[in-house]
Amino acid sequence: MSDQVRKPNADGVAAALESIQAIPLAPTPLLPVEIGGVQAHVKCENLQPIGAFKIRGAWWRLKSLDDDHAVAVSSGNHAQGVAWAARKLGLRATIVMPRDAPQVKLDNTRALGADIVLYERPGEDRDGVAAKIIAEKGGTLVHAFGDPWVMEGQGTAGLELAAQLGHEPSRIITCCGGGGLAVGLSLACPASAIHIVEPVGWDMVGKALAAGEIVEAAADAPKTICDALQPNATKQLNLDMLAGRAEPGITVTDEEIRAAQRFAFANLHIVLEPGGAAALAAALASKVPVDPDTVIMLTGGNADPAAYARTIAAAETAEAV
Amino acid sequence: MSDQVRKPNADGVAAALESIQAIPLAPTPLLPVEIGGVQAHVKCENLQPIGAFKIRGAWWRLKSLDDDHAVAVSSGNHAQGVAWAARKLGLRATIVMPRDAPQVKLDNTRALGADIVLYERPGEDRDGVAAKIIAEKGGTLVHAFGDPWVMEGQGTAGLELAAQLGHEPSRIITCCGGGGLAVGLSLACPASAIHIVEPVGWDMVGKALAAGEIVEAAADAPKTICDALQPNATKQLNLDMLAGRAEPGITVTDEEIRAAQRFAFANLHIVLEPGGAAALAAALASKVPVDPDTVIMLTGGNADPAAYARTIAAAETAEAV
Repeated sequence: MSDQVRKPNADGVAAALESIQAIPLAPTPLLPVEIGGVQAHVKCENLQPIGAFKIRGAWWRLKSLDDDHAVAVSSGNHAQGVAWAARKLGLRATIVMPRDAPQVKLDNTRALGADIVLYERPGEDRDGVAAKIIAEKGGTLVHAFGDPWVMEGQGTAGLELAAQLGHEPSRIITCCGGGGLAVGLSLACPASAIHIVEPVGWDMVGKALAAGEIVEAAADAPKTICDALQPNATKQLNLDMLAGRAEPGITVTDEEIRAAQRFAFANLHIVLEPGGAAALAAALASKVPVDPDTVIMLTGGNADPAAYARTIAAAETAEAV
Repeated sequence: MSDQVRKPNADGVAAALESIQAIPLAPTPLLPVEIGGVQAHVKCENLQPIGAFKIRGAWWRLKSLDDDHAVAVSSGNHAQGVAWAARKLGLRATIVMPRDAPQVKLDNTRALGADIVLYERPGEDRDGVAAKIIAEKGGTLVHAFGDPWVMEGQGTAGLELAAQLGHEPSRIITCCGGGGLAVGLSLACPASAIHIVEPVGWDMVGKALAAGEIVEAAADAPKTICDALQPNATKQLNLDMLAGRAEPGITVTDEEIRAAQRFAFANLHIVLEPGGAAALAAALASKVPVDPDTVIMLTGGNADPAAYARTIAAAETAEAV
């Protein structure tokens, strides 16, 4: 299908932003943050109506869709984005979600009116589940990170933050699942270095960039608290777009991510889910340089209440170490 | 002293905003919020650099100060505001704080370079402690809510939110300790109804408005989780400015406040301390009407981690009730 060969581009990102502004969906705040004595910036995508940047790509894809039924596979934030956009546009949405997705994401997706089909992670072939739905009921697959419209939509965050900063950042530090946001940001801010941050063992984009080819997650990949950053592999289109463009991948541990969640709680007074704190975790752990023109993406805030409470309550112990 | 008779006014609020913009201190976000099917707005003062609106009044007072030493009495947010402003302006700051103030507020105030003098709450006369410091070491008292410059400074939030909304709100719902913010908002937005929200038993402004005179907190006033909203009484200047202007006072319970903290966590992805959630609590509990032109003030996010974790972890239980 022609969808598979369309390349995302800067004009598409600009058109996506125009469409998003017309909804209207207001720009998310760009707030100051002090890290190691340097005042840099955080782009608060966790303050989106669905609590994640995924609303951007989902909107732009569904707005451009020649179908009345969107089918998506997602652990939760893309699911909410597709459900939100479908409701706004009067389309049907069916979302294939892992049975172990955070309850809050399952609940929110359902509350937005989407049909949910659960699958077992790992084991069951989620793309197969989606393909079966489309074969039986019709619909168009809206891939969470491999779709060119989705990439362009995510890139609107980059146009916004450059406008808010007054110029393109020196560097953008972003969490990375399959690489849709990273591609979008690279198109939106061609002068900015793009640093991608992934959980240890789930650095499928970082590994693909290093290898020059798609790398699949190991069967015995370690557990991660970042439910939103566990792609089995990136896609060729993402790799093609990021190769030679993104900086070498960075990985962060669960404990570094929890420290970043606590930092955001205490210093920024915002809620980050684990995956949404990955870029901040890399900056706080000095795994990437931070200068006054650096923008750190805070990508999602849909945290499980019980897990979040444990992380925050551990603050005193953790800081004392 | 002439300070005591100066009346805060709209010109002062406008001058304060100009001064705040020149620091620069960026406007805090005005975000959408859906309450009972109505989309209203929240003004996120918890996203200030010190995590509370108090930075505004403290800045404007210290900027206007003819002294190199600011002395303040505060449970924490005003303390941080004064310390922040003093550091920026190169002044000394001494803060009288209750020994039982949240550790996070004590730590933050100290980290901003202020001298801290602790007192026992209740029992010790905190104003007496401050007066003794001034008698011995010199300095000017920067009252947390009874100072006209402080009131004008707090009012800058009102000018900002009206600009962000495009017009003055129909109503502004705000938490209320001594009434400094309420006075400032009433000056900034003369066309808006001003609804003040106080913890049950600590509604010293609501009671004063009803009685037409200052009312002191009862010796056996109930405990409240709102450490920031426990004034012993409002001041005559606050009462004079709000009489015939503010709507009748509203009170909220600890449980209503905790529900609002959970709502902000799950739906807005921001952290609110108890006092900072009071206005939202009143709106969620339908104690004040909410229409699309309503703005709800979210005034502070300096939550104690352990207490916040307990509140958030109680979510499932609480929502199921």
